[in-house]
Order: sequence, then C-alpha cells, then structure tokens
Amino acid sequence: MAIKCYAAKKAKGRLEPFEYEPRPLAPFDIDIKISHCGICHSDVHLIDNDWQLTEYPLVPGHEIVGEVIDVGVGVKKFSNGQRVGVGWQCGACWHCDMCISGEHNLCPEIKATCMGNHGGFADMIRVDSRFAFPIPSKLESENAAPLLCGGITVYNPLRTYSVRPYQKVGVIGVGGLGHLAIQFAHAYGCNVTAFSSSPDKEKEARELGAHEFIPTTEKDPFEKTVGKLDFIISTVHVDMDWPAVLNALNPKGMLCLVGAVANPMMIPSFSLILQQKSIVGNPIGGRMAIREMLRLASRHGIRAKTEVVPMKNVNEAVDKTRHGKARYRMVLKN
Amino acid sequence: MAIKCYAAKKAKGRLEPFEYEPRPLAPFDIDIKISHCGICHSDVHLIDNDWQLTEYPLVPGHEIVGEVIDVGVGVKKFSNGQRVGVGWQCGACWHCDMCISGEHNLCPEIKATCMGNHGGFADMIRVDSRFAFPIPSKLESENAAPLLCGGITVYNPLRTYSVRPYQKVGVIGVGGLGHLAIQFAHAYGCNVTAFSSSPDKEKEARELGAHEFIPTTEKDPFEKTVGKLDFIISTVHVDMDWPAVLNALNPKGMLCLVGAVANPMMIPSFSLILQQKSIVGNPIGGRMAIREMLRLASRHGIRAKTEVVPMKNVNEAVDKTRHGKARYRMVLKN
Repeated sequence: MAIKCYAAKKAKGRLEPFEYEPRPLAPFDIDIKISHCGICHSDVHLIDNDWQLTEYPLVPGHEIVGEVIDVGVGVKKFSNGQRVGVGWQCGACWHCDMCISGEHNLCPEIKATCMGNHGGFADMIRVDSRFAFPIPSKLESENAAPLLCGGITVYNPLRTYSVRPYQKVGVIGVGGLGHLAIQFAHAYGCNVTAFSSSPDKEKEARELGAHEFIPTTEKDPFEKTVGKLDFIISTVHVDMDWPAVLNALNPKGMLCLVGAVANPMMIPSFSLILQQKSIVGNPIGGRMAIREMLRLASRHGIRAKTEVVPMKNVNEAVDKTRHGKARYRMVLKN
Repeated sequence: MAIKCYAAKKAKGRLEPFEYEPRPLAPFDIDIKISHCGICHSDVHLIDNDWQLTEYPLVPGHEIVGEVIDVGVGVKKFSNGQRVGVGWQCGACWHCDMCISGEHNLCPEIKATCMGNHGGFADMIRVDSRFAFPIPSKLESENAAPLLCGGITVYNPLRTYSVRPYQKVGVIGVGGLGHLAIQFAHAYGCNVTAFSSSPDKEKEARELGAHEFIPTTEKDPFEKTVGKLDFIISTVHVDMDWPAVLNALNPKGMLCLVGAVANPMMIPSFSLILQQKSIVGNPIGGRMAIREMLRLASRHGIRAKTEVVPMKNVNEAVDKTRHGKARYRMVLKN
C-alpha cells in the first residue's frame, strides 16, 4: 500500500509526485484518508529549509482533515468512517514532566507530522491516534483543517495566560494566524485591536471581530494604543519596533510571540522592568487545548477563511502562501 | 525644622552636607528619625545621572529604617517611638487600576523616595505613612534596611510568579540583590544555583543557601544547567549571553530581570517559542508584598549582609557600591 503524495527533493524545490510505504500499523496508529490539508507558513519554511533542519525528500502538510480508514489493535476511541484532524505534533515521549502534565506540546522529544515524517500533502497518512482529534460536525473540513495548527497556536496563549473578557487584546498581523486570533479573542469577550500591514484588510478584520484596526503602514502605529493593551499576540515573521510594541501594553501586560521572527529582537530591559511586563513564546498547544479549541470553534462559529484548491495545484498554492497572497489560508483538497 | 542631609549637586558629584525644609505635615505623613539607610545601586545610578532623569540637588537613599517621631492627623496605625522602614516608593495615585488592585508599585504615577523627593541620606524624612512598614522586632535595623528595596525586588518575583518548592531557581549575580535572592529562594524551599563573576564568593553563597555555585568566569557557565532551571532571577547590570541563559531554562521556564541592563538584550524569538519560555521584568513590590517579605525575613532569619559606616563617610561608602566592592550592602548609620 503505497501512499501517494507531493514531496520537495531539495531546498526551495518544487513539489513533485512521490510515493512511500508507510511504517507497519502500530497498536495506537490509525490510517486517515486525507480530504483536506491546510498550508501553513511553516510548510514554506520547511520547503525552503529556512531553519536548516529539513530532510529531503520532504512531504509537507500538518493541518490535516480526513476519514479514519483503519485502526491499530490498541485504538479504542476511533473507528472507520470517523472524521478526524491532525496538526503539527504527531508524537511525544509520554514520560517527561511535560508529558505527564498533559503538556505534550512541550515535550523535549516532540515529533512533528512533517519533520522526520511524511506529512499531509498526500492521499493518506498513518499516524499515532493520540494526536488525532475528532472534528465537531458543525465545522466544515476546509475551515477546520487550519485550526489544527494555526488555530491552536493562537488559542493556546489565550488559555495558558488566562486572558479575560474585560481585557484588551492586540493582534499583530492579519494573516493565516492573525485572522484566527481575532476570532478567538473576540470569542473570549475581549476588546480586539488588529494591526496589519495591509490597510485593505480593515473591513474583513472588523467582520472577524476586531473592534479597532490600525494599519502598520502608518507612522508610529502603536502610538494610539500606548498603555492600553493587556495582551498582544504577534503573528508576524518580520522585525517590529519591539520597544514600541511593549509600550502599547498596560502594566503587567504580556507580549506573546507565535510567529518566529528571523532576527533577534532588541529588548531594552527597562521596557519590561518598570511595569512588570513580559514577553512569552507559544508553540501550538497540548492535546486537551486542541479539544477545547475545536469545541469553542464549533460553538462560536470560528472558522478559517480558506481558498480551496485541488491537491495537484500544490505548487501554486504554496507560492501564494510564500508570497503572503493567501486570504487567509490555502487548503489543498483531494 | 531643617532636615540635615547629604546631596549631590551635579552628575557624578561628591555628596555634600545640605539642608532643606520639609513640606508641611500632611494628614497621612509621618516624620521618621533615620537610624540607618542602605545604599542601593540605583542611588549610584541617580548620583551619576545614568538614566538622564536626575534633578539636582539630589539627596539619595531609599532603604530607610528609623523611628517615628511625629504623625499627621490621619495616621491611625503608627505612633511615636515605633520602628519603621521606607523603600523605593513613597507615593501613588491611589486611583488607577493598579492602585485599587493593591499593586501600587505598578501605578503609572508612582513617586520615588529619592527622585523628585529628598531621600534617606539624612537625619530625618517626612513621608506618606502608607509607604512605611513596621520592622519586625527580630530584625536588626542594619540588616533590615536593605530589605526595603533590595529584598522586596527579589522577593516579589518569587511571589508574583508562584515559584514552588520543588523547583530549581537560578540567581545571576551574588551582590546586594543576589545575596538576598539566594536567601529568599532557599526559604521558598527551592534548589538554588548561584552564578557569580567572583569565584571567591562561593563559600558565602553556599552559606546563604545556594546548593550549586557556578563562576561566570568559566567558559559557557550556563552549559551545566541546560534545561534544568525553572526560574532565573538576573540581578546583574551587565550584558549576558541571553540565549544561553534562556537555554538553561526548563520548558515553561521564566527569566526574571530585576537588574536593569544597560544595552538592549538580543533575544531570538525561537528561544522563547519552542518551549513556551518567558522573560519578565520586576519592579520592587506592592505594599502587601513588602509586609509579607518582612514577615518571611523575620521567620527565616533572612538578612542583608552589611557593612555599616557612619553617615558622614557617605562618599567612601557610595564609591564602594559604585565599584562593586560592597559585601554585600553598604549601610549608612546616624
């Protein structure tokens, strides 16, 4: 049983049809017939070997939705025909302090769906069922797929740092992650300010739940919010005027990075010390957080805005993501 | 009634005898006859105008202990003869979100004892009693004075970020702040690793409660603790290899800055994102935290190690602090 997929053979290479034999079906494994797979910016980083960690051939894809078509002997809670999703993580050590706390996403031996494993730009995937999640019936597969990585990445900080409804949240970047962050922060009952380098996204940002919209193309875009925001989620990959961003925070305010910035950030210590501010980083979320996130998305109608293209058009779709042209998430469909 | 004190008339100037008339006694004011005043590194920064914020003449001093000798009409809980202490803060707006939460130390209108006001290098001070704290009888005045600023600055993070006894705490810098941080972290029941640029401080650091001692003069001093510390308090004013420091943290670990570093810190975003680490800054502590800190110090025998000199020798004492020769806190005595 060969799995048919698309692989990059070298850094920045175009994706080409590829086949591989899956590992033997382990007790906790399930086979998923993939219907949809979102394209995350991390997939582009992996294809381009931006992190110098990619092994080729690389089969990207870690925002997977599909149907269970086979289960290992140890699998009790999944059955054939069920619709499930898989995100960035596909394995953990199950033994470290983080794992036994239910925070498998912080396991030092975390395994990624498409790093060292072949991912979701494929017709099928064999994966540890403990990192598969039932998709609530109200969510369309194409809108749900990007929640598995993009969604949990922006939901998890709101949960972990106990953001509360009377607070003001800033979202920097209205893209694949940011347009989901706005929706989750809105669902949290917060006042939401969106910052975007695309002034033409204002209408959509407001429809998604933003109360304020500030184009970062303006001079001093953070000036208007000085000392007004309690929590800022930064989804961008580009350098920002970080002291100005920190200055937009209230006392005890927190800047949460979910987008990996290429260059080191220059942080004056006083910008943190004087009013007990903090900078935190967030990587995806734990298994329970993913369940919660899907329930919340179902109840509040939170969904990724997607452009769905056939799997065979994978290269065009990747290019759109690479060049920031997706509005807001490209999703491949089999 | 003129207050006799020592003042710097210009940046880096020597302190000279000075006199001033205090403001009229306000309802909540008390007069304190100062017996002891610690010398904090901030006093040196103020004298030298390192922060470009100093107004001259400057009367430094914000680690004050003395005896109440007069009280305003609104003062109910202090009476003449009582021993009290005053730290960095001497005023707040009493109205902002932080103040009504009891976190007056984060009030945007915070007033400092020796910035815009004349401080404790003096025979007396008139000060808002709401920022004065009774000194527990078990604490000697000379050992207690440095707790009012140095002590609360390192105690407050342990409290605010809920450090727990099964955790491992790193303390960077074994000086005025660091030698207190070791004692408080030890009182919290934590495993404590001290990092110091003075290898000869090992014996004392261990006596204060450090379980491990690592000289930062070694090559890669943070190598031994990679992924082992849960909470690091950095008390130093010098540049560190911040990515290496962050690398010493466990998943979810926190680096807390209490020492203001002169240059912006270079922080790669991945060093925070991958394992949900954070960098926070801490300024002194609130009024309740100061009470708790004094109670804890009294119960656990936590005290500043001090070198006591007569107030008239203020310039020699300031020089010792300026050049890092204090072991560990210079205290002026009237």
